[in-house]
Amino acid sequence: MSILVVGSIALDSIETPFTRVERVLGGAASYFVTAASLYTKVNMVGVVGKDFPQEHLTFWEQRGVDLKGVEIKEGQNFFWRGRYHMDMNLRDTLETELGVFGDFHPIVPEEYRQSPLLFLANIHPELQLEVLEQVPSPRLTVLDTMELWINTTRSQLTEVMKRSDVLLMSEEEVRHYTDQPSVLAGVRQLFGLGLKYIVVKLGSYGALLFGADGTYFSAPAYPLEEVIDPTGAGDSFAGGFLGYLSSVQPGADGTYTIDDLKRAVVHGNIIGSFVCSDFSIDGLRNVTMSDVELRYKELVLFSHFDPSWKPVSSLQDTKEQVL
Amino acid sequence: MSILVVGSIALDSIETPFTRVERVLGGAASYFVTAASLYTKVNMVGVVGKDFPQEHLTFWEQRGVDLKGVEIKEGQNFFWRGRYHMDMNLRDTLETELGVFGDFHPIVPEEYRQSPLLFLANIHPELQLEVLEQVPSPRLTVLDTMELWINTTRSQLTEVMKRSDVLLMSEEEVRHYTDQPSVLAGVRQLFGLGLKYIVVKLGSYGALLFGADGTYFSAPAYPLEEVIDPTGAGDSFAGGFLGYLSSVQPGADGTYTIDDLKRAVVHGNIIGSFVCSDFSIDGLRNVTMSDVELRYKELVLFSHFDPSWKPVSSLQDTKEQVL
Repeated sequence: MSILVVGSIALDSIETPFTRVERVLGGAASYFVTAASLYTKVNMVGVVGKDFPQEHLTFWEQRGVDLKGVEIKEGQNFFWRGRYHMDMNLRDTLETELGVFGDFHPIVPEEYRQSPLLFLANIHPELQLEVLEQVPSPRLTVLDTMELWINTTRSQLTEVMKRSDVLLMSEEEVRHYTDQPSVLAGVRQLFGLGLKYIVVKLGSYGALLFGADGTYFSAPAYPLEEVIDPTGAGDSFAGGFLGYLSSVQPGADGTYTIDDLKRAVVHGNIIGSFVCSDFSIDGLRNVTMSDVELRYKELVLFSHFDPSWKPVSSLQDTKEQVL
Repeated sequence: MSILVVGSIALDSIETPFTRVERVLGGAASYFVTAASLYTKVNMVGVVGKDFPQEHLTFWEQRGVDLKGVEIKEGQNFFWRGRYHMDMNLRDTLETELGVFGDFHPIVPEEYRQSPLLFLANIHPELQLEVLEQVPSPRLTVLDTMELWINTTRSQLTEVMKRSDVLLMSEEEVRHYTDQPSVLAGVRQLFGLGLKYIVVKLGSYGALLFGADGTYFSAPAYPLEEVIDPTGAGDSFAGGFLGYLSSVQPGADGTYTIDDLKRAVVHGNIIGSFVCSDFSIDGLRNVTMSDVELRYKELVLFSHFDPSWKPVSSLQDTKEQVL
């Protein structure tokens, strides 16, 4: 089952407390297609500048990514420079040059429009709406966004949320968008928009899955001895999440079960963990499905506990009976 | 199986973004005994001032807490004033008056010295060492501490760690003490001191359990719609953790299994969740073992996922075989 993704393809310069890299492959769509192409065919829509290295396009082609929707345009590629704090859950943007991305308007090739799974990677909500106009009825639409759009284009972002099935948000974004003090209260408010599932990404703490029907799942992060570069972890999470769902046959009514969604979130966390182990997409380059399977089994061991515990007796329970 | 705890008994004034309370029951030992007395008999060592309300002592007595080790001393009680941020994982200390706690030296009553389980709540490491001199061979010694002692009395703290079996630390404390960028690297360094288990408390994200033998467990937090006051969550965690272990018969060699420890961490998270739902110890007052059992069952549902998933095929695996 193929996936359509629309998003940014960037060149990133990144500083961490330990090292730095210049103009490496970055951008939400780049991480997403690298991740999701482990599972299925991915159809990519985006734009690159004349300075974008051909080797990255060749790499994706070799992974079976369809690049028909990627326009190569006169001008400089989208460029981002960022710096991570000692706590690598935090980072600052030092420089952004939009380049050819500045006047990008997504054009979804005709043959992509039947992709059952759609990922709206983090771009301007106006552009996400343009995609939804061209792809009116995917089976599942998954939406990612960022703080910037909550601040600057809230009404368009809300419109995209209303037309999506699954929303991916960080905890801070949920709090910021809803102005609710707790994630649970925020998520409840977001479900008012008609979403079916909300995934709250917790960085190095894993992810939470909420269903509109009240289901809840806390997925453990895969523990990492060393985080080299967390850039793209959220986009790679989305790649693992949708990649896994692409392998599942939904029910007769076209919907996924909660167990499908739980496994998808676990896959998201696993794929996100691989990408943090190196700069750019390098942590994902050589990952195979056997590597994913190994981490999946480890996560079962790391997070499951005796489901059958029952209390024998309690000082306070006994006393209550007496009083 | 009884538990001995030595720690602070305080009166707290607390501000949250939503409300404030004045001179309510606080202190590490107070939270701990309230929590652990749900499971077993707790022997308490500490000091209170003449202004400490008798009702709190009566409450503990009714819960079967042994207060023989609590000295009532001429002078003011230990007082703490703190304020929470909008993100209630963060707080500032506004005022501390040590009062009678200032020259406290723990005296462990003779009949407490055989308690098989010992909790060294967060107090000056010098005092914790004084306790260890008096209670030389508990079956399990669990140690809690805080940032302040890492900064000011590192060598004594290290000495206490060397003589403890289980260390409870927040993620920030692990990073601070070890100066390692990742929790995993920090924990590895800490095991060099001879600890058997390390529990890394992640606030609203749950807790991680590490074993010296390499075992690892990520315990989910119980999700809360509303956090009224997180004060004492760590101490209550310890109460649930040790409380649960008090109900377990250790093996012939006196040790607990990893499954015992996993359940203990889950109990810790559950008890910690109750205390956050109200100010002071009020969230724990009426909790019964049936309430704990219900949250335990919920946490199983909230965190377990299909353990049997296997990949069917992968685009990249297939390609690897071809190339």
